[in-house]
Amino acid sequence: MKSTNKTKLLEVFDNTYPNRNYLIVHKTSEFTSVCPKTGQPDFGTIEISYIAKKKCVELKSLKMYLQSFRNDGIFYENVINRILDDLVSVMNPKWMEVKGIFTTRGGLYSTVTSVHGKK
Amino acid sequence: MKSTNKTKLLEVFDNTYPNRNYLIVHKTSEFTSVCPKTGQPDFGTIEISYIAKKKCVELKSLKMYLQSFRNDGIFYENVINRILDDLVSVMNPKWMEVKGIFTTRGGLYSTVTSVHGKK
Amino acid sequence: MKSTNKTKLLEVFDNTYPNRNYLIVHKTSEFTSVCPKTGQPDFGTIEISYIAKKKCVELKSLKMYLQSFRNDGIFYENVINRILDDLVSVMNPKWMEVKGIFTTRGGLYSTVTSVHGKK
Amino acid sequence: MKSTNKTKLLEVFDNTYPNRNYLIVHKTSEFTSVCPKTGQPDFGTIEISYIAKKKCVELKSLKMYLQSFRNDGIFYENVINRILDDLVSVMNPKWMEVKGIFTTRGGLYSTVTSVHGKK
Amino acid sequence: MKSTNKTKLLEVFDNTYPNRNYLIVHKTSEFTSVCPKTGQPDFGTIEISYIAKKKCVELKSLKMYLQSFRNDGIFYENVINRILDDLVSVMNPKWMEVKGIFTTRGGLYSTVTSVHGKK
Amino acid sequence: MKSTNKTKLLEVFDNTYPNRNYLIVHKTSEFTSVCPKTGQPDFGTIEISYIAKKKCVELKSLKMYLQSFRNDGIFYENVINRILDDLVSVMNPKWMEVKGIFTTRGGLYSTVTSVHGKK
Amino acid sequence: MKSTNKTKLLEVFDNTYPNRNYLIVHKTSEFTSVCPKTGQPDFGTIEISYIAKKKCVELKSLKMYLQSFRNDGIFYENVINRILDDLVSVMNPKWMEVKGIFTTRGGLYSTVTSVHGKK
Amino acid sequence: MKSTNKTKLLEVFDNTYPNRNYLIVHKTSEFTSVCPKTGQPDFGTIEISYIAKKKCVELKSLKMYLQSFRNDGIFYENVINRILDDLVSVMNPKWMEVKGIFTTRGGLYSTVTSVHGKK
Amino acid sequence: MKSTNKTKLLEVFDNTYPNRNYLIVHKTSEFTSVCPKTGQPDFGTIEISYIAKKKCVELKSLKMYLQSFRNDGIFYENVINRILDDLVSVMNPKWMEVKGIFTTRGGLYSTVTSVHGKK
Amino acid sequence: MKSTNKTKLLEVFDNTYPNRNYLIVHKTSEFTSVCPKTGQPDFGTIEISYIAKKKCVELKSLKMYLQSFRNDGIFYENVINRILDDLVSVMNPKWMEVKGIFTTRGGLYSTVTSVHGKK
Repeated sequence: MKSTNKTKLLEVFDNTYPNRNYLIVHKTSEFTSVCPKTGQPDFGTIEISYIAKKKCVELKSLKMYLQSFRNDGIFYENVINRILDDLVSVMNPKWMEVKGIFTTRGGLYSTVTSVHGKK
Repeated sequence: MKSTNKTKLLEVFDNTYPNRNYLIVHKTSEFTSVCPKTGQPDFGTIEISYIAKKKCVELKSLKMYLQSFRNDGIFYENVINRILDDLVSVMNPKWMEVKGIFTTRGGLYSTVTSVHGKK
Repeated sequence: MKSTNKTKLLEVFDNTYPNRNYLIVHKTSEFTSVCPKTGQPDFGTIEISYIAKKKCVELKSLKMYLQSFRNDGIFYENVINRILDDLVSVMNPKWMEVKGIFTTRGGLYSTVTSVHGKK
Repeated sequence: MKSTNKTKLLEVFDNTYPNRNYLIVHKTSEFTSVCPKTGQPDFGTIEISYIAKKKCVELKSLKMYLQSFRNDGIFYENVINRILDDLVSVMNPKWMEVKGIFTTRGGLYSTVTSVHGKK
Repeated sequence: MKSTNKTKLLEVFDNTYPNRNYLIVHKTSEFTSVCPKTGQPDFGTIEISYIAKKKCVELKSLKMYLQSFRNDGIFYENVINRILDDLVSVMNPKWMEVKGIFTTRGGLYSTVTSVHGKK
Repeated sequence: MKSTNKTKLLEVFDNTYPNRNYLIVHKTSEFTSVCPKTGQPDFGTIEISYIAKKKCVELKSLKMYLQSFRNDGIFYENVINRILDDLVSVMNPKWMEVKGIFTTRGGLYSTVTSVHGKK
Repeated sequence: MKSTNKTKLLEVFDNTYPNRNYLIVHKTSEFTSVCPKTGQPDFGTIEISYIAKKKCVELKSLKMYLQSFRNDGIFYENVINRILDDLVSVMNPKWMEVKGIFTTRGGLYSTVTSVHGKK
Repeated sequence: MKSTNKTKLLEVFDNTYPNRNYLIVHKTSEFTSVCPKTGQPDFGTIEISYIAKKKCVELKSLKMYLQSFRNDGIFYENVINRILDDLVSVMNPKWMEVKGIFTTRGGLYSTVTSVHGKK
Repeated sequence: MKSTNKTKLLEVFDNTYPNRNYLIVHKTSEFTSVCPKTGQPDFGTIEISYIAKKKCVELKSLKMYLQSFRNDGIFYENVINRILDDLVSVMNPKWMEVKGIFTTRGGLYSTVTSVHGKK
Repeated sequence: MKSTNKTKLLEVFDNTYPNRNYLIVHKTSEFTSVCPKTGQPDFGTIEISYIAKKKCVELKSLKMYLQSFRNDGIFYENVINRILDDLVSVMNPKWMEVKGIFTTRGGLYSTVTSVHGKK
């Protein structure tokens, strides 16, 4: 389940203010993947927060990366941890948090939040 | 009032990222049980948050477990502490919090929150 | 599926202002029944609006009547039409509307609204 | 249950614009009375809307009038119709609507709306 | 209480589209005047809607006009009807509605709405 | 663009109350298709309202039908009109409305609403 | 102003989980008392949060206790501190907070929050 | 002030369902122009609703058209009527409404709504 | 700009619970003063929070004190610091915070928060 | 990308309370600039919070400064850091935070927050 080829979709650019700790948040409510157990589509909101070291993630490439999960069969817990692993591997941020807020399944809403580094 | 047979309803699966502390939250607004004093139905929202050690709880089995309280006569305080005890016994999480937000009885809204371990 | 014995739970009282057309609405978000197909519990909000002729429905008996569906296997469409039939049979109102707003099943929210008489 | 002495609390003043049909609404969320059946306090919001003929109701006297129900045992339906009767008797408006939105009793919210004249 | 000198504050400009019926709404939550009975300040939101004939009201002059009530002792009902009279006298609109939504006094919120012409 | 094979996914059941006009609404915020021009995914909420004649649509089959658009390239306007055509062809309702509320594209939110029959 | 006889209304029951620190909150928006200065009724929301030691407060008795202030003349600050004193005297909790959020008087909203023990 | 060259930015496409009256709404909260009097930027939300005859407006061209007002000096009333004129001239819809909801100037919010044809 | 005569408007009363640290908050959305630069009225919400030592501020006198700014020309920053100075001088609280949330000027909302003592 | 001439637009005034640490926040939802990559306009809310040392920023000059970005091609990250740099250079505050909340691009909302000094 570790990231293999999706990271190729991610582009980064140089952080103009590397000496300052500032917070960047990107959030989309248009995330969808497929439940590996039932084959049913899952929907959710993904929120990525980070403090950059030398690199920032380019917005359009992030969008394409997130869209690449559309027809993947993957559990909630793994979606969030994989996005975190992939972004950390290309950006090496000082701190990063990835949060997924998923729509209800069988009356249950689920949220998964994973963190890399210290804030 | 300690859990006896309900834990059989709960299924767990292996945590794919056991070395990372990440937060999982499951929440349902479709919880109902019965007041042991009046026999009247109680309604509420149950929110379960945890940081897994080796095991995560399977979503559909959690739903069936929560539904099993439907016709049980049980007080608010005991519902929440029992759910916590049952989940801890099958998952042994690093940290877990169970919160119940119950609808109004006689004009009074009640919330009960119980915690296992340190965050 | 026509009402048989549940109407015995409903009590009525004399309308003190029979010559004035006024609107009464009773609404509860604590309705639950069982899906006859899957055996899973359904949850919803029931809203009953009416203009009385000679009789009004007593609030506590209405609560007991709505609770009596708790373990019945019945489809959304039939719940609403049966409540309407039962209330019309004991109250004979000038006008009545029964609306059910049910929680999501498979990502789909459903609402059913049925009317008796003209407003 | 018809109004007897409470109307003495209501003061009116001359409508400065009697030839124009304009709408006045007074609304309070601080209404309380007592349930005649259980002796328990009831709480609600009262909304009074009218188009004046020759008289408008004075605001402070309306407040004192509504407060006078504080320890009266009276049903929801009768509260609303009596307020309508009392205000109509002292103001003779072209049109008036009185609406009560009451807090939940046994999980049921109730609304009663009564009207005098045509809008 | 009829308008005398305040209309001098109002400026109008030519309606560029006199042959089309279109709706203009101006709304401010920064209206204040003084209660003539208690001397206490009143606060409210004023909403002016109209369909112009040949003239539209200039926005800044409208603001100055509304500010001119700041230290006037005037009842809610008269504020609304006077604003309507003043605007009608300088603009002669096809249709105009003036609405005031006032903050709570003694727990009572009041709304006054007055109309000129047909929509 | 007319419906060909998707209607096979839709199942219907007999309307238990064919002599009463009552309103059924099904709504999902989990609809996604693909923009035929850019290849980018579109997301939206679909709301289906109808008054049945002899047949009602079965909820689970409706879900599968709506999911079948997931990887189709289709414009907003055509999505809504096709869903309407397909449902009308299998249910023949007295009245039906299909509404799509789509998420922002280039800063523009779009809504499309199409109707069959008279309410 | 110290509590004398109202504590008789409060009933307690044994805490089933005395070894676990868990939070219980009871909240009602149906609190009313009387201003000792003006004789006017006051309205507010009371929120009681606590971590029990050996005893929990019984819900219905708490409701009766709170209703007993209905016709008492008592200032906001004293209401909150007295409820705290009374509950502490009968329950001896590890920690307790009582908060009152009162409706506007003369355009001023007031909130009073008092705490016993350490959380 | 009548439209001259901006219509060249608008592209249309054939309505696939010309025999059905259905409603299309496009809305953006990212509209800005310049006040011709003060030179200050204006901001607002534009909502365009229509029932097409033979042509629909292409979404991306509509976005470019609306952006073309960015540095134009133009009054609120003229913005809305000109957008209506321009769209009517290229699409000839059965019915169209253009609404602008502008941010506050001097404490005054303004809304302008203009209509072409009958709904 | 230091307080001179306004403190005469403020009345205090003895704190009944001087040995307990409890929080009192008074908030009004009906504050208005005048901009000393433009002469235009300013509007805002003032929120005063404190932990009393020996004295509490009387509610009606606080209202009169806040109203006394109505026609004063004073900047946002000075309003807040002066209210804090005045209240501290008459009450000598353990801790006090004064916050002003002002309505938009030129599209800019401003908030000023000043504190006395430690919480 | 470091500030050159925009700081000339910023005016400051003397802090009347230099010995007290108090918080000032200015917020506008009317910020727009241009994406340097696509040439498309960007829209957002800018929130500036600070604790002054000897100087405060004058509100109208801040508005003109923020408007000066209207037709500049500049990335989100650089907008926020440059505003922070410019304000720090003219005011030398004890602490300052600048936050930008930008509207959705390709379904992604972005927030950037940068800080100077310690709070």
